[in-house]
Amino acid sequence: MTANKAWTLASHPTGWVTEENFRLVESPLPSPKEGEILVRNLWLSLDPYMRGRMSQQKSYVRGVEVGEVMTGETAGEVLESRHPAFRRGDKVTVHAGWQLYWCGKGELATKVDDRAAPLSYYLGCLGMPGRTAYFGLKEIGQPKPGETVVVSAASGAVGSVVGQLAKHWGARVVGIAGGARKCAYVKDELGFDACVDYKAGNLYRDLKEAAPKGVDVYFENVGGEVLDTLLRLMNPFSRIVVCGLISDYNAVEPYGVRNFRAILVNRIRVQGMIVFDWRDRYGEANAALMDLYRSGKLKYRESVLEGIEAAPRGLIGLLRGENFGKQLVKLA
Amino acid sequence: MTANKAWTLASHPTGWVTEENFRLVESPLPSPKEGEILVRNLWLSLDPYMRGRMSQQKSYVRGVEVGEVMTGETAGEVLESRHPAFRRGDKVTVHAGWQLYWCGKGELATKVDDRAAPLSYYLGCLGMPGRTAYFGLKEIGQPKPGETVVVSAASGAVGSVVGQLAKHWGARVVGIAGGARKCAYVKDELGFDACVDYKAGNLYRDLKEAAPKGVDVYFENVGGEVLDTLLRLMNPFSRIVVCGLISDYNAVEPYGVRNFRAILVNRIRVQGMIVFDWRDRYGEANAALMDLYRSGKLKYRESVLEGIEAAPRGLIGLLRGENFGKQLVKLA
Repeated sequence: MTANKAWTLASHPTGWVTEENFRLVESPLPSPKEGEILVRNLWLSLDPYMRGRMSQQKSYVRGVEVGEVMTGETAGEVLESRHPAFRRGDKVTVHAGWQLYWCGKGELATKVDDRAAPLSYYLGCLGMPGRTAYFGLKEIGQPKPGETVVVSAASGAVGSVVGQLAKHWGARVVGIAGGARKCAYVKDELGFDACVDYKAGNLYRDLKEAAPKGVDVYFENVGGEVLDTLLRLMNPFSRIVVCGLISDYNAVEPYGVRNFRAILVNRIRVQGMIVFDWRDRYGEANAALMDLYRSGKLKYRESVLEGIEAAPRGLIGLLRGENFGKQLVKLA
Repeated sequence: MTANKAWTLASHPTGWVTEENFRLVESPLPSPKEGEILVRNLWLSLDPYMRGRMSQQKSYVRGVEVGEVMTGETAGEVLESRHPAFRRGDKVTVHAGWQLYWCGKGELATKVDDRAAPLSYYLGCLGMPGRTAYFGLKEIGQPKPGETVVVSAASGAVGSVVGQLAKHWGARVVGIAGGARKCAYVKDELGFDACVDYKAGNLYRDLKEAAPKGVDVYFENVGGEVLDTLLRLMNPFSRIVVCGLISDYNAVEPYGVRNFRAILVNRIRVQGMIVFDWRDRYGEANAALMDLYRSGKLKYRESVLEGIEAAPRGLIGLLRGENFGKQLVKLA
């Protein structure tokens, strides 16, 4: 009989995540009860927020406890349905966690159309990262045509959509990424106006050159020194969308932001965001992203690891910035 | 013949301001040209923003150069008018700088009514500090009835108005001040619900006790450790009004803010403000503050030094938090 495999949390990390923080466990396949569906997960999404869930620090949702299945979103197909809205073969996304099968209430899953776009895209540019980019940029960043938008982690799942949406909405767009290869991709493939390599060691000077009129919107995914550098480049009445602070997630001591005074001097608006605050408007974002995708203006790149065994390694690489594009694990 | 006396900047300070950074100079009294007025300054306002103007660091307005008269607002009376809107004896406020007399275009002065309130109040609770409190709290802080508002430098010119406005608008109000005497004043005289002494050494614990439901609006006047502590206490969707960062103004190395991540986790909105961004709406603030004052709900305290010679000493004391209430110099 087929068994389920799941990664559980073995211990809370201190500083960098290691493979020892996870344990792979097997269990029998559950049977759906009335109102439930059984899903075979085909793709697992790996995302920076997972680092927060592994920690015991207070965050916006409860963290994963030792022994629990690691949290995460998957895309898969319905194997068995006891819910009227689903039938065998339907494709869905669901917060199934790091496991091969998931069984639960049908209401927790979202049907997606894998003829309109590849199934895995619903975990990326057409899914949570895409919606994060959409609402963060539209509702907090509020770029006006001609303004300069800077986004960090520009080749990543969120950053790549932020930049393409900002271009679509008429802004000048500058990416920040690690290494010449990612920067070339951001500029040549994604169509950003410029991309600065933060590993080149001249971030302030290079950004000043790439954004000669200063920065009106900064979409923050990384934090730390990059944030401190951007604070020096922000224009009066500019906006900073605080979406992620990945450089802090693994730090034992958080980074001390020195240029906070720029917020006062330039009347910057800095605002934190979590995409699920807009869950009532997901349909709006999904439609806008699908339109952009259909018109060929939403380029996207995936970094795929094979087999559930690779998941911890994938997350560790993601937190170190080793992935190139949206990080996925192909489960079947 | 009467001579003018003025404090000019002798040198830019590094770290703490000293009396050696200023030079007192005498000059003959100017005569107003067509369209100008001559004002005898009676009160000079000392304010934390002056530290910024003394520095060579980039700020929202150009700083004072060595040899120029120190910037500052005064309240005084018109001695001679060649402007149709003013006559001898009119009371005005004007950005005259640190000097006994001022001569310039009538449009730069604002007539005030010293029968409605003492003249000096137009430099404080009914003037720029009052308007700063009004717009910062109303437009950025946006407290709702029942929410908790915390304000630092609570016994000061801005902080005292912030707290009283917040009470008037239905919030629970907690002040932060230095020392038991200031705290007693904030609670007993200004009517705040609580006041925490940051010098007592238990800021986090004491604030947690004073704001058991967390903080919805923090009106920031000081920065540094106090800001970092507040970040730990902010509620989801709370707001931080960045009005001043006085603890940083004299620091050679700016303070590194460690709890920036709270902005993300709790979706805090942090926004810098400068009152003159609302200059088109000063009338609205003046009317609201005058109403509150007339109804007896705007308590106010002044700390007065005598004679223009005392001005540098007064600013140094203000930056060290030694004043108790709005710091003024009585010029005549």
